[in-house]
Amino acid sequence: MIQDFVRTSEVQALLDRASGKTVEGGDDRLKAITRDLVESLMATIVKYDITESEFWSAIKFFQNGAGEFGLIVPGLGLEHFMDLYMDAKDKEAGQSGGTPRTIEGPLYVEGAPLVEGDADLSDDPDETDTLYMTGEIKGPEGENPDGAILHVWHANSKGFYSHFDPTGAQTPFNNRRRIKIGSDGRYSFHSKMPNGYSVPPGGSTETLLKAIGRHGNRPAHVHFFVEAPGYRALTTQINFGDDPFANDDFAFATREGLLPVPQRQGDSAYVAFDFELQRSASSDDEVFSARSRAAA
Amino acid sequence: MIQDFVRTSEVQALLDRASGKTVEGGDDRLKAITRDLVESLMATIVKYDITESEFWSAIKFFQNGAGEFGLIVPGLGLEHFMDLYMDAKDKEAGQSGGTPRTIEGPLYVEGAPLVEGDADLSDDPDETDTLYMTGEIKGPEGENPDGAILHVWHANSKGFYSHFDPTGAQTPFNNRRRIKIGSDGRYSFHSKMPNGYSVPPGGSTETLLKAIGRHGNRPAHVHFFVEAPGYRALTTQINFGDDPFANDDFAFATREGLLPVPQRQGDSAYVAFDFELQRSASSDDEVFSARSRAAA
Repeated sequence: MIQDFVRTSEVQALLDRASGKTVEGGDDRLKAITRDLVESLMATIVKYDITESEFWSAIKFFQNGAGEFGLIVPGLGLEHFMDLYMDAKDKEAGQSGGTPRTIEGPLYVEGAPLVEGDADLSDDPDETDTLYMTGEIKGPEGENPDGAILHVWHANSKGFYSHFDPTGAQTPFNNRRRIKIGSDGRYSFHSKMPNGYSVPPGGSTETLLKAIGRHGNRPAHVHFFVEAPGYRALTTQINFGDDPFANDDFAFATREGLLPVPQRQGDSAYVAFDFELQRSASSDDEVFSARSRAAA
Repeated sequence: MIQDFVRTSEVQALLDRASGKTVEGGDDRLKAITRDLVESLMATIVKYDITESEFWSAIKFFQNGAGEFGLIVPGLGLEHFMDLYMDAKDKEAGQSGGTPRTIEGPLYVEGAPLVEGDADLSDDPDETDTLYMTGEIKGPEGENPDGAILHVWHANSKGFYSHFDPTGAQTPFNNRRRIKIGSDGRYSFHSKMPNGYSVPPGGSTETLLKAIGRHGNRPAHVHFFVEAPGYRALTTQINFGDDPFANDDFAFATREGLLPVPQRQGDSAYVAFDFELQRSASSDDEVFSARSRAAA
């Protein structure tokens, strides 16, 4: 009997009241979304016969874990799902091609130095190899967009990002730059080679992942935003193809076409990587999502 | 096409990986629950064509709102749902009768003074009427349990609780007591009459409720835990039947049998209310849920 409990008139009436369906005013779409989300939580409670104590443990988990939502969301595949979903909608709209999008992650910081020419991203010493990355930014017909900007950010060799380094050891904007691209579309930068990272030890993300038998490791990677007037803003990143976690990224950022293997020579690693942008259908396409981001 | 997007093999494979289904180790039930919850979020995203920016707004809302989950959860009807669900399971198990349970809310504090006889709950002055409440604690055959304790907590006339008063004006444990019940099962206490409250102005709960056209008001009410060896622990509360929000409680605590109308005379208000406990089937029944609670 219990399986149909959520469909009883008593529970359905509660859902109507709780979601604001029974009152005037407010946003109808948000009411409907709220109703569906609460109903699906209720259905899960009944399906797994979740006890009162388990229910409150789950609430407390998410309350304590709020500071790590930026890791829990990609860790549960939801951030990657948004990419898959946007890809599917693009395909349906005939708007495909170019470099694949992939997740942004929670560690972009606005206001990185805007530089030109061959850029050095690393301000701080770091006993590791040097990454040399070069390539071209182009449009669907191979043309080079005017006024393109390549945003780059990555971790240091300990897997820590400037502005988010728990050791406090990094200069602001270390390994973060915005690179102005010239009329030839070429970019080049070098920096101290990043390493992968794992989610914070003892934190909520790790607790959850361990409880479901998973690890919280990312391979070494480099993040990019690419923007140019007349072109769609691109959020992407490369994972290094020779990293042990290259195909087992806890955040599901790995995608076909975004997994170059660095050419390693002595203490240098070379990656050649071109970015192909789609043309924008409207100016809305040219801006990044309205996600809340850190600013220094 | 998009409606079936969540059922594509690509998304199903992501769900298997994200929930830990594809790896050894971890808790199988938690994997299944995680998979269902994430899948239902995905289905809602597709059903309402939620954009990337909306998605991140929602994440940020819950991140910022974590401190108010204790209000958002009852506000969305989930805490009341747990009561309805436990009632349904009790009924199925033939374990019904007695005073109805209703939501605890987030404001219980452990360690209130343990008192006997006619109890005065209010330590602080409060320019308002006095509530006199009396009644009996009994079992299914009208017997009086040995060793019963009645926990009482309520707001002051401004709608604020001690330990959670934003004005900082209250003595610890003001309007909070644990009352030891004698062999006659009788209890009586008096206190400064509580008023209802609304959710914190400008907070996350208010933001959400306003967006779906709802208010965040509770009627005046008094909370109770009742415990006695050999009997099921009872979490309940009364809403005052003459309060304008008596039947429109944003937290859905109002239940039939829990809505007494105080008898008002001059500056006194009298409520007679008996508690009937169920016998416990096991010692697990005699303790309250393992919810995380404040302790002074």
